[in-house]
Parts: sequence; C-alpha cells; structure tokens
Amino acid sequence: MWFEGAEKKFEIVSKGAQLRKRGLPFWQKTVELAGAKILSSIENEQTLAFLLSESSLFVWDDRMTMITCGRTSLVNAAAFLIDQLGPENVDLVTFERKNEFYPHQQSTDFLKDVQTLQQRYKGKAFRFGPPDEHHLFLFHGEKEFLPEDADCTLEILMYNLEGPARELFMGSQTLERIREIIRMETIFPEFRIDDYLFQPCGYSANAIKDEFYFTIHVTPEEHGSYVSFETNVRLGDRVGDLIRSVLEVFQPRSFDVVYFHPEKELKAIDVPPFIQRNYVRQSLSCGYEVGFSSYYLKSADAVLAVPLEANP
Amino acid sequence: MWFEGAEKKFEIVSKGAQLRKRGLPFWQKTVELAGAKILSSIENEQTLAFLLSESSLFVWDDRMTMITCGRTSLVNAAAFLIDQLGPENVDLVTFERKNEFYPHQQSTDFLKDVQTLQQRYKGKAFRFGPPDEHHLFLFHGEKEFLPEDADCTLEILMYNLEGPARELFMGSQTLERIREIIRMETIFPEFRIDDYLFQPCGYSANAIKDEFYFTIHVTPEEHGSYVSFETNVRLGDRVGDLIRSVLEVFQPRSFDVVYFHPEKELKAIDVPPFIQRNYVRQSLSCGYEVGFSSYYLKSADAVLAVPLEANP
Repeated sequence: MWFEGAEKKFEIVSKGAQLRKRGLPFWQKTVELAGAKILSSIENEQTLAFLLSESSLFVWDDRMTMITCGRTSLVNAAAFLIDQLGPENVDLVTFERKNEFYPHQQSTDFLKDVQTLQQRYKGKAFRFGPPDEHHLFLFHGEKEFLPEDADCTLEILMYNLEGPARELFMGSQTLERIREIIRMETIFPEFRIDDYLFQPCGYSANAIKDEFYFTIHVTPEEHGSYVSFETNVRLGDRVGDLIRSVLEVFQPRSFDVVYFHPEKELKAIDVPPFIQRNYVRQSLSCGYEVGFSSYYLKSADAVLAVPLEANP
Repeated sequence: MWFEGAEKKFEIVSKGAQLRKRGLPFWQKTVELAGAKILSSIENEQTLAFLLSESSLFVWDDRMTMITCGRTSLVNAAAFLIDQLGPENVDLVTFERKNEFYPHQQSTDFLKDVQTLQQRYKGKAFRFGPPDEHHLFLFHGEKEFLPEDADCTLEILMYNLEGPARELFMGSQTLERIREIIRMETIFPEFRIDDYLFQPCGYSANAIKDEFYFTIHVTPEEHGSYVSFETNVRLGDRVGDLIRSVLEVFQPRSFDVVYFHPEKELKAIDVPPFIQRNYVRQSLSCGYEVGFSSYYLKSADAVLAVPLEANP
C-alpha cells in the first residue's frame, strides 16, 4: 500500500455562522468523520488552524477550509457541516479532488462524492485538464456569491521531488533543521507556525497571521513523492515570485498550480525552465475564476525504468 | 461508470507447446477467466486470432499474446496458462499494465497481479515513467531468453481523439465506412481483417498475415477516448512512418509508444508537432530492450474546464 499524497479539499462560507465558537468537540467530530485526527492547533484573533493526521483544517467566523490526503473520506465531513449549518445558511461550497496517484485505494471517487453533496446542496461539477493527465475535479454550489476583491487562494502541487529536497524529508530530521531549510519566514514574515514531523517520514506545517494562512504537506515516499503548498495571502503580482521561491525549496520534477481569484483576466504564469503542459481556465457561476496549470521539467536524456518490489 | 480503454497485456513463449492445437474450449476457458468472451476468430497457417469482447488474443504454435481492456482480470488468464503449460515449460512471460484512466474500477492493481504471477513464475517488475504521468507497468520472467534478431512489438496508445476521428466512431456507423476511413490496407497490404462494431460505440479489429498481426481497439467515449494500435510486423526504419500514419487516422491529443525490440541502440522517435514528454528505456534480463515514450500536443490558448454529469 503506497501513501496517497494528493489531496481533497472543501471550503464552506456561511455568513453569521460564528464557526470559531463551535468548540473543539464539534471540529473533532468533523475531522473524525473524514477519517482523520486533530494533532494540534494554533489560533489568533481571526483564524483557528488545526494540524491533522492527514493535512489541515482552518476555521474563521464565517468560513472554513479543510484539506485531507491519504485515504480520508473528506466528503463525509463536508456533508456533516452542510447538514449542521443548514443548506439555507450556507453561502458557498466548493469541493476539490486532485486526481490521485492511487485512486483504487480510495473509498469513493469524485462522482460519488458529488452525488453525496448534491443531495444536500445543488451545484455543478467540472474537470480541469484531460482525463489522462494531471487534472483537478471541482464541485461548487450554484448559489451566487460575490467574493471580495482580493480574495484568492493559491495551491502549488509538486510531484517527484529531486535529490537533496527529498532526502531532507526522508532522513531522521529535526523540526529545527527542516524549518532552517524551508525558511518560510523569509517568504512570509511574522506568521505563527505549527508543524509536525511524521514517522517514518512526512512533514506538515500550518501558519497563520491575521486572517491569512499558508500550509505545507510533504509526502516524500519514493513512489509518488509529493508536496502541497497553499495560501490565501493576497499576492497580486507576486504570484510568480512565490511559485519560484517554493519550487526552489522543494525541487520537484513537475507541479500544478490551482488559483482561485475574483479577477476576470489572468495570464498563464511562466516558470522557466519548467514547460507549461496545459492551462485550463473557468469562470464559476459562484463568482470565482479558477485557473489550473501543469508544468514539468524535461529530462535531456532517456531515463531508466524504476524497479518495483512486488510486496511494497 | 466510465469505460476503461487502457489495456493489460501478457505474452507467453513456450517452445514445443503446440498452442494452436489446444482447441477452442481451452481458449474459451482462458478468455472467460479474464472476464471476457470470444466474439470471432480468423486463422492462417501460422496465426490464430480471436477478437474478444474486450480486445484480442493471438495464438501461434510456440507463443501467445492476450490484450484486454475494461474491467477484465487478465492476470487470471495468465496464471491459468502458466499452470496449464507448467512453469518449467514456459520460456518467457511478460505482463504489462498501462496506468488506467479509472484504476478504482479495477479488481486488482499491478502489484497484486505481480504477486499472483510470482507465485508461479519468478520475475522482475518495473515502472516505465513517473507515477504522476502516463506510465507502463511491466513484469517479466527471470529466465534468460534470446529473442530472434528482428522480433519486435510496437504499441501506439492514443488518448483524447479530436474532432472527425472521434465522431466517426461515436455515430451509427457501418464497418464498411470505418474501414474506408482507417484504410489499413494502404499501410499493411494483404492482411486478412476481422473487425467488430460495438453498441453503443467502440470498434475492434484483428488482422493477420503469415506470423504477423496488427490489432486496433477504439474506445471513443467522451471521458477518456482512447485507441490502441499494436503490431509485431518487423518495421526496421519504418517505425516513425507507421506512427505518423496511425496518428493521421486517429488524431489524438496525446499518445504513448511502447516498443519491444532486440536492438541495443534505439533513438527516441520525433513526431512533430507532438512534444515528447519523456523517454524511458530499459534492457530486460530476459533479452528485450523496451522503450516507452509519451507525446502530447500543446494547446496554443487556455482551454475551458469540462462540465461533468454527477450521474454518468
């Protein structure tokens, strides 16, 4: 059984729901429904951030974002939350699934998840990207929603880490050493960080400042090494710079960018020497523009096949 | 439930086994074990070719090749044949699985299949290509084997058919009209063809001449359209020409080439305007060289996301 790095994610906006006041047992139950556990949390005056056994949960007064990897059943947590809040009180639902490395290990596929959601909240489903390549599945509620002007979320999904970056996360490291290498404070100063080193390998970090977060999840396993980086920091023109900084740390062979934003015009982002494989753009009727791009590094020469153990 | 076009394949060489003399019930049982059915057959003095409900089976006196798509369990047929022939009488086993569009619909994954095979026949397993991109899984027996000088197999696996080619296979066509468009007799003259049109869509063809075959399987469904073309015709320098001819007929957006051959030196094949995504080469200890390459066409502009029905 190989570990699935690729994540599922959902976001709910419910104005007036005062989500941060729901208390720990409520969020524990939500997380357990997805098949995960809360490891730790940090909080400031606007944002409550839970580090999970499989990724992260962020809670604000009027919205929440939950991200889980592995074999979690995130849709069950989403269904529970919609039921608890009452669909009539939910202003926005989005639910995403990146195509998995090992979909046969998952308890549901995206279409089954959509059926579960549709029973509670009417919406639309899309596939960003061709079915035989990297692609993102996205469901969103049909209700009209007006995102704030600068409201954006950037996801950088990185695959097949190279050399030093992967070794860093495979060895017996300390959190201090990893923070030293990642040096996120140079990219995002003044964020409070909550991070965790998994055994035998794997690393997760949540970081918050005011209403903003970033989160990092590293799955360094040989077959399907993967890192996700996500933030709601308002980047404006600095999107390309951030992507380049993050790539420099993790050194993937390929990566995807998922970008939610309210602007109508957004150009493809060049990140040489990576080759942009495709660029999918869609205006959602719920008010967001979503861009999905895949990039890869081309090997100069032929490479060898990878030997597999029959009993991994 | 979407139809899985991507195929599994195995080949067995057993000198002196006189496989063509085994009779129809034996091959019916083999095919049924994989969860498929025999639709029709053609035969010449060297080759017996069965068209299956899911792809094809070719039988010669000393070897056989079976290819199945959909949700078939091809490994069960392979295990049955090894058991029936006796592992000590089997000179070569290869077993391949292309990474599937919808692996979660499959009854086994490649590693489980390898375990089934290893219980009968010691061998090695490889992955050609990165786990997050198009890749081919390959198992082969450890026994040394000396392929004949010109013994080669070429597979062209084509994804996301464009415009006219896909429409041809989606509509209510006749076999005559399809043969007219494919015009395989211009590429391979004098082959005897056995073909079949599936309802509501899909097309398969087997063709034989002497000991040579080619076979075509078309899965034109909207989500994951796919065509495979395979032949053991000795192409020499004409490999590139054949690939270009086949691409012209089926007009895919991306394709892979799998090439088994006994030569130590084989260069990557250029097929402009397709971009070669990667090239994996491996010498197998059983005597073959195997090359795996992925190609794609880059869209000039951003494309839209694809709307999905929640109940396909």
